Amino acid sequence: MRLNGRSPIELRPVRITLDYIKYPEGSVLFEIGNTRVLCNASIVNSVPTFLEGSDRGWVTGEYSMLPRATHTRKSRESYGRVSGRTHEIQRLIGRSLRAICDLKKLKGKSVYLDCDVLQADGGTRTAAITGGYIALMLACSRLVGRGELIANPVMDPVAAISVGIQKGTCMVDLDYEEDSSCDVDMNVVMTGSGRFVEIQGTAEQSPFSVDEQKQMLEAAAEGIQALVRQQAEALQKAEL
Amino acid sequence: MRLNGRSPIELRPVRITLDYIKYPEGSVLFEIGNTRVLCNASIVNSVPTFLEGSDRGWVTGEYSMLPRATHTRKSRESYGRVSGRTHEIQRLIGRSLRAICDLKKLKGKSVYLDCDVLQADGGTRTAAITGGYIALMLACSRLVGRGELIANPVMDPVAAISVGIQKGTCMVDLDYEEDSSCDVDMNVVMTGSGRFVEIQGTAEQSPFSVDEQKQMLEAAAEGIQALVRQQAEALQKAEL
Amino acid sequence: MRLNGRSPIELRPVRITLDYIKYPEGSVLFEIGNTRVLCNASIVNSVPTFLEGSDRGWVTGEYSMLPRATHTRKSRESYGRVSGRTHEIQRLIGRSLRAICDLKKLKGKSVYLDCDVLQADGGTRTAAITGGYIALMLACSRLVGRGELIANPVMDPVAAISVGIQKGTCMVDLDYEEDSSCDVDMNVVMTGSGRFVEIQGTAEQSPFSVDEQKQMLEAAAEGIQALVRQQAEALQKAEL
Amino acid sequence: MRLNGRSPIELRPVRITLDYIKYPEGSVLFEIGNTRVLCNASIVNSVPTFLEGSDRGWVTGEYSMLPRATHTRKSRESYGRVSGRTHEIQRLIGRSLRAICDLKKLKGKSVYLDCDVLQADGGTRTAAITGGYIALMLACSRLVGRGELIANPVMDPVAAISVGIQKGTCMVDLDYEEDSSCDVDMNVVMTGSGRFVEIQGTAEQSPFSVDEQKQMLEAAAEGIQALVRQQAEALQKAEL
Amino acid sequence: MRLNGRSPIELRPVRITLDYIKYPEGSVLFEIGNTRVLCNASIVNSVPTFLEGSDRGWVTGEYSMLPRATHTRKSRESYGRVSGRTHEIQRLIGRSLRAICDLKKLKGKSVYLDCDVLQADGGTRTAAITGGYIALMLACSRLVGRGELIANPVMDPVAAISVGIQKGTCMVDLDYEEDSSCDVDMNVVMTGSGRFVEIQGTAEQSPFSVDEQKQMLEAAAEGIQALVRQQAEALQKAEL
Amino acid sequence: MRLNGRSPIELRPVRITLDYIKYPEGSVLFEIGNTRVLCNASIVNSVPTFLEGSDRGWVTGEYSMLPRATHTRKSRESYGRVSGRTHEIQRLIGRSLRAICDLKKLKGKSVYLDCDVLQADGGTRTAAITGGYIALMLACSRLVGRGELIANPVMDPVAAISVGIQKGTCMVDLDYEEDSSCDVDMNVVMTGSGRFVEIQGTAEQSPFSVDEQKQMLEAAAEGIQALVRQQAEALQKAEL
Repeated sequence: MRLNGRSPIELRPVRITLDYIKYPEGSVLFEIGNTRVLCNASIVNSVPTFLEGSDRGWVTGEYSMLPRATHTRKSRESYGRVSGRTHEIQRLIGRSLRAICDLKKLKGKSVYLDCDVLQADGGTRTAAITGGYIALMLACSRLVGRGELIANPVMDPVAAISVGIQKGTCMVDLDYEEDSSCDVDMNVVMTGSGRFVEIQGTAEQSPFSVDEQKQMLEAAAEGIQALVRQQAEALQKAEL
Repeated sequence: MRLNGRSPIELRPVRITLDYIKYPEGSVLFEIGNTRVLCNASIVNSVPTFLEGSDRGWVTGEYSMLPRATHTRKSRESYGRVSGRTHEIQRLIGRSLRAICDLKKLKGKSVYLDCDVLQADGGTRTAAITGGYIALMLACSRLVGRGELIANPVMDPVAAISVGIQKGTCMVDLDYEEDSSCDVDMNVVMTGSGRFVEIQGTAEQSPFSVDEQKQMLEAAAEGIQALVRQQAEALQKAEL
Repeated sequence: MRLNGRSPIELRPVRITLDYIKYPEGSVLFEIGNTRVLCNASIVNSVPTFLEGSDRGWVTGEYSMLPRATHTRKSRESYGRVSGRTHEIQRLIGRSLRAICDLKKLKGKSVYLDCDVLQADGGTRTAAITGGYIALMLACSRLVGRGELIANPVMDPVAAISVGIQKGTCMVDLDYEEDSSCDVDMNVVMTGSGRFVEIQGTAEQSPFSVDEQKQMLEAAAEGIQALVRQQAEALQKAEL
Repeated sequence: MRLNGRSPIELRPVRITLDYIKYPEGSVLFEIGNTRVLCNASIVNSVPTFLEGSDRGWVTGEYSMLPRATHTRKSRESYGRVSGRTHEIQRLIGRSLRAICDLKKLKGKSVYLDCDVLQADGGTRTAAITGGYIALMLACSRLVGRGELIANPVMDPVAAISVGIQKGTCMVDLDYEEDSSCDVDMNVVMTGSGRFVEIQGTAEQSPFSVDEQKQMLEAAAEGIQALVRQQAEALQKAEL
Repeated sequence: MRLNGRSPIELRPVRITLDYIKYPEGSVLFEIGNTRVLCNASIVNSVPTFLEGSDRGWVTGEYSMLPRATHTRKSRESYGRVSGRTHEIQRLIGRSLRAICDLKKLKGKSVYLDCDVLQADGGTRTAAITGGYIALMLACSRLVGRGELIANPVMDPVAAISVGIQKGTCMVDLDYEEDSSCDVDMNVVMTGSGRFVEIQGTAEQSPFSVDEQKQMLEAAAEGIQALVRQQAEALQKAEL
Repeated sequence: MRLNGRSPIELRPVRITLDYIKYPEGSVLFEIGNTRVLCNASIVNSVPTFLEGSDRGWVTGEYSMLPRATHTRKSRESYGRVSGRTHEIQRLIGRSLRAICDLKKLKGKSVYLDCDVLQADGGTRTAAITGGYIALMLACSRLVGRGELIANPVMDPVAAISVGIQKGTCMVDLDYEEDSSCDVDMNVVMTGSGRFVEIQGTAEQSPFSVDEQKQMLEAAAEGIQALVRQQAEALQKAEL
């Protein structure tokens, strides 16, 4: 049993609010435990310079935390430079969502996925991906419905989860307190069909064995399939 | 009658959610019509350099819009410089809240009021001030309750509203569409006791007469008193 | 009587030097008391991106203080970022001058009004507007004379003044010392025909009553008409 | 057989030049195939702010490519902002080297590991880590020799390698051409004692199966042990 | 005879206005022909970090052009980065003035020499040095007079001039038109006692011979002595 | 005799490695004593904006020091702004190489000369020019060989050297220690045919006499001719 009463492989409760903001093509307020991320998908009729004239569209992510999303206030990155951590997370979100899209079906269009963390209690980057998929799917489905896209570019669901090892126990979906005290921390992104998109394991505190690595990847895979089911349920209720 | 069915002096419906975020000393989700601003007040035990060693504390505001708070996506200011408009609004929020505080009672402390616009439909800066006051009051009351402040520095409520003239009619609380089509646009900040804190009238399109100026200030004063009553009601329900 | 011997509604002496710099289309050294602002109007054959292809031209202002325009040296903003105060003033100058121009008559052209404060003793932003109008008028008249503009876009003079209340007395054209000790500080921009372009009243120290607001606006209106007369006299002597 | 004649698990030839630059505490020119990275370790008597007063020292990495390290010239990052890719690599280098150090033995000191890529042909970040370890070890050993460190903070060797899958074949130590054509790309950092420090697998092009993941990790582990042997040989010849 | 009627070694008329701005310790409006530079010397009671705790003070220069000091408007550097040209000029001004000061007599103090070009017609950097010397001397003399400096740190006058070769003729004090059409352009800084402080000769268009170099240095030396006499005359009239 | 055993006019040993990096059109590792500069010439098919549509190409230089090229580590300029010193050196390199090129023969092309200092022991800017010429010549000769340039734009060799006066003795090619203790420091750039391209003499410590100036220029001229001979020898061995 964990401090918060969960079993090692138990996720926190998930709450998915569709259309939280009325302007974006797809908008989702994604909550898992106390982590609350607003995922807005905006589709525009242009592509980055390096794709101009090609047959492909683009999907990119931006990630930001409100200054008081955390226990103590952090300075707004808008007043300085974007940190290395933010850069890494933004690139991760973009890669994860492009991995499940047929970019040719987005030809001439770009999707901006803005993931703004309103409240943070661990797992904000994985929440951004899991919620971001729903916003992306909403946006694409609606554009197909309105005839602005011929076919839906989304090929497979994608979701993400954190997993860690603390005193020999492998646990999924770490909250902030667990995350801070884990020896190893891994973020895993996986498709609905069970293939890996990203594995990011980091062991600054103490390197981990081959065996521990195997345990973590198995637990992550299981947790991700549970999230994929919740994504599907929420999308069934969407007004398209 | 206006396009949206309101009478010239009728405000949009207001919704005030206390403690929307769990970490800040004071947190309020302030909604007026479709405008939705998250106001978080953080109190820290330090003051800006120019006040170090003095007998006063400080109150300052930061304002930001999420990229898709508006009809079309705007680039995040974090990737460039803060615009002149943002600068102006932040300074206005800070001045408005300092005007009703006895800064000596905040000695050694600073309040950061983060106003993040989740959804924008006109009047975001006045909503930030009106909601910001509630967050500030919540935060200060709690610090008094916990003995971290000896006395509450807040001396008087403060609220703000926009007012404009369109085809000869003076209207309060403009939504985005009205704001875009008005000839004159004025933002007024006023205390609960009916004194002006700020008057910012701008007539880029067509200068206004002395008479029109008088009408606008009167209408604004009335609208602000209505907001002050709603602030008070919300605060009565707060758990301190 | 004020400390400097002026009556409450008495302006400081004004000195207007036309063609102070030989290159700009319009150049004016505007002095009011010890405040000395160099206003240069440059007209270029292009418009900002957002006006390309439209039927309108543009007027914009830039404002800067030399590092030693003040009692103590201030760091040059060129070595950091432009401050919020500078941003506000630049936007005010631009709006004030656009308010009296028919921008269609400037189609395809932009006016840059550079206001550089050589010596500051209060009222630099209002001096920039009052002197800026003269430089703008000079520049436009000359372009009409040379056939580069079909008609003069300037429709009405514009001038600006500060007004404040100190110990119950309402005074116009505050110098630096008065400005620092006033309870309320208002900047008013008005056309030659007596209509308001901007009212910016700020009462960080102590909010002001409806009555005080009325007194200040009346005094400002009177002062501005005196400035408009001096602008006209100077322009009569211009070599066009 | 690969295009370059190597077998799937064969590394490119490694060349290690100790003391390439005469000023740093530790300097290594690390070459693997055509990839050439200069790794300089500088030890200074100060720690970052967040460690001041603590009992720990720090190890951090910086990574940069000369503009013409690649086939076509890239703009120098010094003329703009550091890219997300550079940020990620720098953080990876820092974490990898800290993972094998007892930071308490560095109390009051920081190691800067500057990794400058002179020539790039794939695997620059893993070369930076593998060469960086040698520079770090050289620097620490010399400081122990001179009595400036009481004990050597380095606890275990560390090395890194890339691994990928192309048309079903798993290959290690990808050169630029292979890297560009791989379906999956993974970077693995491992200690001399066979524990993982980092696993970064990315499959933007096509997600990979659980089985492929296992193959890649095994091949990486083998390649890393070969690098660790070459590090040890080079260090035996060092003049301490 | 030159286009402007001057003989090859004839300077343009010089006009020196002392105390043009009332706040700085030393203020000089220096005009040579149509070039007009405002030189303000500010003395502050602090030194740059690298001199803290030493027995020396510091003298540094800043240089800026107003946007419309030239035929066509140039963007204000405050909105971007300071250009390489500005950097070079600022460093030149600082070195030139430090060369004639005994910095020990400025212990604990720094002189900022702000050189702002109001109107530019060639030779702005040499005007900044020649005028800057007068402002520096004024400021130091006054501080000696007020007892804030024990002895005057200025040991020797310094002045600067441009010299060039056009179609075989060597000419001094080039105006903008001459400067643009010269084959070679040299800026020379020299003390009142006839020693070189700086020689900066540049021949991007066509390299120059040893003989031409000799001619230019001789002509420059003569011109500088004429400027030194005019500096002395102006300073004799100063109210100290 | 100098401290390092050299006679006053004796250069340090020079080592020139052609094709040090395999990708650039011209690559040279230039070493003089312990100073080691990597000079890479890249030729691209575009010109800066100000030359678009003209009949000329362009040559420009960039200069950077690795953080640990010096005795103590310097922060990477990529994390801040480029310093005034770097700006000056880059402009000097560009002017020096353009002075010996017929830019019309480069029509439509630009040469970027990247000079990265790996190890610094005085004279890095002059080494960058001397080595840069070789890289430029290599690159241009190869483009002529491949038919991408019709004729070689390089008209004359160019090389550079430092010269200084210490206790009355004039010495060439100063190393770091000599450079730091010299009274006067001059950098001279000269063509193979013996004409000056740049003379930059600086005497912050103590102004120098006309006589000393003559001695320094003569010694520099002699040293440069020795360097030109070594450039020619190296280029004879190039594989074109």
